[in-house]
Amino acid sequence: MRGFLLNNVLPFWAKNAIDREFGGIITMLDRDGKIYGTDKNVWFMGRAMYTYALAYNELEKKQEYLDIAEEMYRFLPKCELDESGRLPFIVARDGRPLDVNSAYFSETFAAIGCAEYYIATGDKNVWASAEKYFNIAYSLYKKDLARTPTADPPIVETKALGPSMIMLSTAQVLRKVEKEKYDSIAKECADEILVHFIEGKGLLENVSLTGEFVDTPTGREINPGHSLEAAWFLMSEGVYQNNTLYKTKAKDIIDISMRHGYRDGGIIAFCDCDGNPPSQLEWDMKIWWPQCEAIIANLLCYNVFGEEKYLKDYEALRNYAFSRYTDSERGEWYGYLHYDGTVANTLKGNVSKGPFHLPRMLYLVDKLERGENIW
Amino acid sequence: MRGFLLNNVLPFWAKNAIDREFGGIITMLDRDGKIYGTDKNVWFMGRAMYTYALAYNELEKKQEYLDIAEEMYRFLPKCELDESGRLPFIVARDGRPLDVNSAYFSETFAAIGCAEYYIATGDKNVWASAEKYFNIAYSLYKKDLARTPTADPPIVETKALGPSMIMLSTAQVLRKVEKEKYDSIAKECADEILVHFIEGKGLLENVSLTGEFVDTPTGREINPGHSLEAAWFLMSEGVYQNNTLYKTKAKDIIDISMRHGYRDGGIIAFCDCDGNPPSQLEWDMKIWWPQCEAIIANLLCYNVFGEEKYLKDYEALRNYAFSRYTDSERGEWYGYLHYDGTVANTLKGNVSKGPFHLPRMLYLVDKLERGENIW
Repeated sequence: MRGFLLNNVLPFWAKNAIDREFGGIITMLDRDGKIYGTDKNVWFMGRAMYTYALAYNELEKKQEYLDIAEEMYRFLPKCELDESGRLPFIVARDGRPLDVNSAYFSETFAAIGCAEYYIATGDKNVWASAEKYFNIAYSLYKKDLARTPTADPPIVETKALGPSMIMLSTAQVLRKVEKEKYDSIAKECADEILVHFIEGKGLLENVSLTGEFVDTPTGREINPGHSLEAAWFLMSEGVYQNNTLYKTKAKDIIDISMRHGYRDGGIIAFCDCDGNPPSQLEWDMKIWWPQCEAIIANLLCYNVFGEEKYLKDYEALRNYAFSRYTDSERGEWYGYLHYDGTVANTLKGNVSKGPFHLPRMLYLVDKLERGENIW
Repeated sequence: MRGFLLNNVLPFWAKNAIDREFGGIITMLDRDGKIYGTDKNVWFMGRAMYTYALAYNELEKKQEYLDIAEEMYRFLPKCELDESGRLPFIVARDGRPLDVNSAYFSETFAAIGCAEYYIATGDKNVWASAEKYFNIAYSLYKKDLARTPTADPPIVETKALGPSMIMLSTAQVLRKVEKEKYDSIAKECADEILVHFIEGKGLLENVSLTGEFVDTPTGREINPGHSLEAAWFLMSEGVYQNNTLYKTKAKDIIDISMRHGYRDGGIIAFCDCDGNPPSQLEWDMKIWWPQCEAIIANLLCYNVFGEEKYLKDYEALRNYAFSRYTDSERGEWYGYLHYDGTVANTLKGNVSKGPFHLPRMLYLVDKLERGENIW
């Protein structure tokens, strides 16, 4: 794991993706690592900063890692939309906004990148940036949760799982610097994740504003990789806080998500919790990141509960993923398999795939295999 | 073809999809025709009106067809956003807007539905509605084409193929009522389609505002089903106007689109014209509607040019599609096959699949096999 991370994955992105001319990172890389498009997802400024700063802090004091984190840190202000520091989703190569949406995940990933880079450098300005980006995201998160139904007669409005799980994992990183504040936010977000866990259905992507099951395609949507990711965020929080409820609920989420999502060695992309036709065309494709999250979730669950079942599932998932996604000739993982496990697209990066899920999994599995805690 | 249309496809939607309580049509039907979601795509109000009014006008004077068209016609005003008649994209079951976007295809499909329903009824109010919806769409179309690049330094802005091809096919229907005005608009739109046909690349989904090839994932995007659909719109216009340029260019588009899109009997969903990794996860899936459009395009091309190659391709495509998509037990076609031709999703309808591409293909192939012209 550690060797593959340090000798294959981190060098692949370091060599091919860093934009030495305009700054930041370009993630649209083909099988060979050649750039096929230069629009940039701002998520990856923060995510690459996090990945390389973490490698510097935890694995190897390599100047190159620090330089890449610095490169991302310097590019972020070029993307900012206004004085407040609000970030767009997609930018042109020079940082000008191409796609601005109401989500705030560019900010959450910027926050974890800055937090980890602050740990590497001790530069107070970097920590100030982490807090600035976090505060933008957190106030939008709270505002979104405060929504109440408005239409009369009612149209069922929903809230999504993504925000609470991403805010939880963001708080889990930022508390490495400031424990008390972010411990309390982490708890609040973990509780909010539990609102999405409906008995007999699963961890639902969308529930009503008051937390009820909504019997529509949106309300029945399950993203098993997302569920398994949320489960290990929650279980690691349970370990950190010594909270039995979080640990046992996370285990239940793993169980039902594996029933929904596990098929022939890997995790599918989407399903409907009641077996209706899924809305997404790619529903039974096997995408790389759900495999990463399933691997972490099952290994962590084995470490916490000691039940052989999770070790077996961890090993099966790991063996499937490493044998199918690894490109032994040209480095990194493929990202997309057909339902039958054959490679559907040879790209190594796109607007969604860059240096994040795979390196995070490799880092954490290395830790978990040595019996360490995540936090 | 005609029997399958009249005895299978039209009854399937008539029986399962018409919303007798709130009006309009619900297209989210599972394999058995059971409704699994009630959000409505406004496109299908116009499309279903068109399909059933056309069946009434051209195939069989069945009161049921007229009643369905009437049902759609009465629901449309419930969807209108304002006095002007502007329509949203998705509405709740009662017609309230859920998704409003800047496209105007709800209006173009409403226009063809009303035009065909006017032919059935002779009701002048219905023709007034057709013109109202057409005028909204046409003025937005012209406004969009008049865009000029604004960013400095330039960010390459693009224009899409969809609008000109949909406006062409809309004008082709409306001229059944008012020849001169819509003949001239059809010509203008046919010329605009040709702007997207770049030598050696294909019929591109997106070109620069001034009609140049753009070397980005967006600029290199090919949707072979879309290309083949545009090709038969253009070729049928060439036949109607006796315009050799349209006919030969349409043939060239068919040739290159089949090279890009034909694989093992069917047409894939997307590719990059230069062989870079496609952006869409579903790129090599075989979706039902590109098969319909490819079948029409090749048969029409055979009728116009008499070259055996097109007859052979038509037969291969038709045999593949009818053997793979037909659900001989429960009616209609499946919509989505994996890359290898196995069924990927058993749904019969969703927000994109309803009574339009398949019935239109069945109607036209029946006509073309008898050697008739489309218009």
